[in-house]
Amino acid sequence: MTDYQTIIEQIHNDLLKHKSYGEVAAYIPELAMVDAEKFGVCLSTIDGQIYHVGDWQEHFSIQSIVKVMLLSMAYTKLGGQLWQRVGVEPSGTPFNSLGTLEHDNGIPRNPFSNAGALVVCDVLLDVYDDPKQAILEMFRDISGDPGIEFDPVVAASEKATGYRNVALVNFLRSLGNINNHVEQVFNLYLDCCSISMNSEQLARSFLVYANNGKTLDGQTQLLNSSQTKRMNAIMLTCGFYDEAGDFAYQVGLPGKSGVGGGIVAVLPKHFSIAVWSPRLNEKGNSYRGLKFLERFTSATGESIF
Amino acid sequence: MTDYQTIIEQIHNDLLKHKSYGEVAAYIPELAMVDAEKFGVCLSTIDGQIYHVGDWQEHFSIQSIVKVMLLSMAYTKLGGQLWQRVGVEPSGTPFNSLGTLEHDNGIPRNPFSNAGALVVCDVLLDVYDDPKQAILEMFRDISGDPGIEFDPVVAASEKATGYRNVALVNFLRSLGNINNHVEQVFNLYLDCCSISMNSEQLARSFLVYANNGKTLDGQTQLLNSSQTKRMNAIMLTCGFYDEAGDFAYQVGLPGKSGVGGGIVAVLPKHFSIAVWSPRLNEKGNSYRGLKFLERFTSATGESIF
Amino acid sequence: MTDYQTIIEQIHNDLLKHKSYGEVAAYIPELAMVDAEKFGVCLSTIDGQIYHVGDWQEHFSIQSIVKVMLLSMAYTKLGGQLWQRVGVEPSGTPFNSLGTLEHDNGIPRNPFSNAGALVVCDVLLDVYDDPKQAILEMFRDISGDPGIEFDPVVAASEKATGYRNVALVNFLRSLGNINNHVEQVFNLYLDCCSISMNSEQLARSFLVYANNGKTLDGQTQLLNSSQTKRMNAIMLTCGFYDEAGDFAYQVGLPGKSGVGGGIVAVLPKHFSIAVWSPRLNEKGNSYRGLKFLERFTSATGESIF
Amino acid sequence: MTDYQTIIEQIHNDLLKHKSYGEVAAYIPELAMVDAEKFGVCLSTIDGQIYHVGDWQEHFSIQSIVKVMLLSMAYTKLGGQLWQRVGVEPSGTPFNSLGTLEHDNGIPRNPFSNAGALVVCDVLLDVYDDPKQAILEMFRDISGDPGIEFDPVVAASEKATGYRNVALVNFLRSLGNINNHVEQVFNLYLDCCSISMNSEQLARSFLVYANNGKTLDGQTQLLNSSQTKRMNAIMLTCGFYDEAGDFAYQVGLPGKSGVGGGIVAVLPKHFSIAVWSPRLNEKGNSYRGLKFLERFTSATGESIF
Repeated sequence: MTDYQTIIEQIHNDLLKHKSYGEVAAYIPELAMVDAEKFGVCLSTIDGQIYHVGDWQEHFSIQSIVKVMLLSMAYTKLGGQLWQRVGVEPSGTPFNSLGTLEHDNGIPRNPFSNAGALVVCDVLLDVYDDPKQAILEMFRDISGDPGIEFDPVVAASEKATGYRNVALVNFLRSLGNINNHVEQVFNLYLDCCSISMNSEQLARSFLVYANNGKTLDGQTQLLNSSQTKRMNAIMLTCGFYDEAGDFAYQVGLPGKSGVGGGIVAVLPKHFSIAVWSPRLNEKGNSYRGLKFLERFTSATGESIF
Repeated sequence: MTDYQTIIEQIHNDLLKHKSYGEVAAYIPELAMVDAEKFGVCLSTIDGQIYHVGDWQEHFSIQSIVKVMLLSMAYTKLGGQLWQRVGVEPSGTPFNSLGTLEHDNGIPRNPFSNAGALVVCDVLLDVYDDPKQAILEMFRDISGDPGIEFDPVVAASEKATGYRNVALVNFLRSLGNINNHVEQVFNLYLDCCSISMNSEQLARSFLVYANNGKTLDGQTQLLNSSQTKRMNAIMLTCGFYDEAGDFAYQVGLPGKSGVGGGIVAVLPKHFSIAVWSPRLNEKGNSYRGLKFLERFTSATGESIF
Repeated sequence: MTDYQTIIEQIHNDLLKHKSYGEVAAYIPELAMVDAEKFGVCLSTIDGQIYHVGDWQEHFSIQSIVKVMLLSMAYTKLGGQLWQRVGVEPSGTPFNSLGTLEHDNGIPRNPFSNAGALVVCDVLLDVYDDPKQAILEMFRDISGDPGIEFDPVVAASEKATGYRNVALVNFLRSLGNINNHVEQVFNLYLDCCSISMNSEQLARSFLVYANNGKTLDGQTQLLNSSQTKRMNAIMLTCGFYDEAGDFAYQVGLPGKSGVGGGIVAVLPKHFSIAVWSPRLNEKGNSYRGLKFLERFTSATGESIF
Repeated sequence: MTDYQTIIEQIHNDLLKHKSYGEVAAYIPELAMVDAEKFGVCLSTIDGQIYHVGDWQEHFSIQSIVKVMLLSMAYTKLGGQLWQRVGVEPSGTPFNSLGTLEHDNGIPRNPFSNAGALVVCDVLLDVYDDPKQAILEMFRDISGDPGIEFDPVVAASEKATGYRNVALVNFLRSLGNINNHVEQVFNLYLDCCSISMNSEQLARSFLVYANNGKTLDGQTQLLNSSQTKRMNAIMLTCGFYDEAGDFAYQVGLPGKSGVGGGIVAVLPKHFSIAVWSPRLNEKGNSYRGLKFLERFTSATGESIF
């Protein structure tokens, strides 16, 4: 049996000895104030074990990681019909690109681009009375932690400077792929991005993707088995913007990153793992987060490939 | 234990009852003459079992499937240096696109685009005295079948009409990413594409990707464990052109398709499976091949996700 | 001496005999209500003659034609510095495209794309206390007609549905090429587009571009000689979106079109001519307006080439 | 009356006092050997005057300037049908780009891109028995100089290294817009590019575009009046690759440049002017050639605008 605690401590300590590269996300003023040297890890297994190291108790903004939850909730409501509104193909372009939309008649290539997530928010506004609250409740349920909250300061900070996202949602509206008021969609999206979690809450939440879509106690079912498998496939092919291929190549796990410096990954039927370190590489993914996961799957020999 | 024989027969029979859509690849005159209704399957497991159904004994042109072998041989020689010449990111564009190359200074986004495979052939010309023969020998070794051959008629047919590939190799040369004579690179690539196999030979060959890079008898080692894992990752993210995301989503196995109608896929540590049916969907992948694999992974519940 | 009156009447009558193709601009609700069969022409020469035919007295929304005035006013204030904010190259793309902006760091290819005009409006907000009023006054001065007005109903109609323009201005802001509040820029732009004129007012206004930048009485000087020449050059290369080359080829005059169905063109040192007919071809330019001008320059043999 | 001799001498001398920027075209080995400091000018008027200064008697490779002749000869044979094979829109992209072709089904945006010129050569192979000789004869006729020749050394140099052009012609063939053998089209194109002229021969040749399509003595008619006008329009909008707008803006004359350092421009009904200086700016147009023409039209106040 793999001695996860020893492995994660060893890699964590090793990486601390080396300089971390990259910058903290600067385009969101509030996020720019985070301590760049933070580094936390939590691993959670489907047989109920939890392992952690470093700053795993500190909260950070999950940002784009929330797109997996947004997609899961829209997918479970609409099923395959959802793919008429958003594709499942890797785009080969940065997360906030507008270029391909014009060519594709407003259908975002994948649900983890900002454009795709905005369309998913539009769907959620159609199917939920209060989607913002529903998403928060779902995170509380699947993590088993009722203390998870939005961070209104981060949300306000992003809303005030989010010109690119305003551009995207209006562009999508002009192309006919947004039904609700653009402000509603924009606000829902940025509120959800502002959700604050620590590494353990994040690892626990994503354990459902390792456990056929449900919590370990079986009380909450986010997705069915087949949907869970498909969500993992989308995470693998689209979870890291134009670095998705590299992540699959170097780490070999489905996962999702956020510009807050968080990365969460899943080994189906086995575990979920959350890593947080705020310095981002040039593709917008956590520099140390990627390094950690690459060394973790090498050390354990555990990946989907 | 899964009763593979029953399952593959059932799906095969079911699909035969429904009309198959799409057209046989027409741009290669020789391939256009293939009987469109052929349909064969072979499954090969790492504990040495073989299951087949339908036209599994008939030979077909493996075409782009050979790119996996080309890449494996270049990768094992150059290691990570290879990625300076070709990326590992899904491109989101068709297999023979020139568009992104211009933007990327001649570095193909991934090794399974035609551009990427041509660069890989250029590498093989540098590292092997007779790369054409070396590739054939490797296929004979890993399949355990010395009868595998090139099809010179198919190769000649493609060479005579391969304007797009001539364009690609010259374009790459003009961008500085081809060192050898363009004719040599072009000829090596199309000779390799012309290799002819039946479903069993193909399944047996790809069993190395399910078995840590080596044959079951351990006599031939194509790649080491870590390289094998990475090859599977590249197959998953890039193996199906701009349908890679869909294949991951619907099938959930690393694999590779060819315009000859073949698809081969792998469940690491378990099996390889080859399906052949010449009608192609609009993305250039076997219509029935995709359907078969989708139903196969649903029926068995076996996928990487 | 050319008998302009006879020529314009003849072409006007001829074209009335043939069916007009295309649709009235539908994306602006207010414009969609215009009578599609309207057809007016006015020619104004630098020796003070005026010729008209058809519905030349009826007012229409000048829309994008205003971009020439916006540019002229910004150019005369900033001089060549203006070209650091917007280029003068034809883009080869539709008028409301976002695609190239991303690639060009937010510098619109030319000032007659919507993106370019929004940047020009941003400049005008910097250099004028009340740019909206200044533009209206300039039109009144150079046309000699104090009755020219904004159409607040058209402006309101466009503002309510102008998602694409909201997207553009926010996108430009995110790329650092808008300094003022996005709402201010957006409102100024759409207010100016709503200016309503008849064919005679439009022809008279553009006579300055045929007359070295000043009115015939010399009382108002919009641009100096060299600036006027350059403005005409930009109209020729960029005045008709992705149909600019065709217009130069078939008509051979600098000019500008608007989705209200107006086209105005200039023969430097000789005349200006305004044509109005609301049905648009697929490129967004007046179908009959183009036909008229093509036949007019063929009949008179007068063009810049 | 304008004192052309004094003006061209003055500008020539002035520019010689300032450093010339840019590099001689290096991608064609033979052209790279040219003396970078050469600088010649010749102006030829439709009333039969000739003015020259500097190295006007030295021969240089006209390169892309030949595209105007190729187009003229194809256009006079096919008329408007030609535009089904090649567009007349500025592309906004560099001269040797492949990007837009894929999107436009193999129809080059304009006849002065390399792709466009290759398609025009394909047309000429269809309509002439010996197009290479016919083009040379036409240049001899309209320049009145039987001594004009191909430069086989330059042609051979380009053919040996012209990977990008091989790519283009094969790409066009694959997209269905080349009918003849790719080698024939490629060879015709590069042979024609190798034509060697001095500034006077070039100015005299292009005088037909200022003189309604015919030579001053009326003995040779290359194009009719209407075709000449249209050729000038295409030169204006497409003659300088992605610097066409700038040239129209700064110079205000139809013209064409070549990587040999030549530029020729025309004022319809008045004159043609050829400038040669081998250093190229980053867009591939002669640095001093552009400066000269900009100052020339400013000094004389003569342009089409």
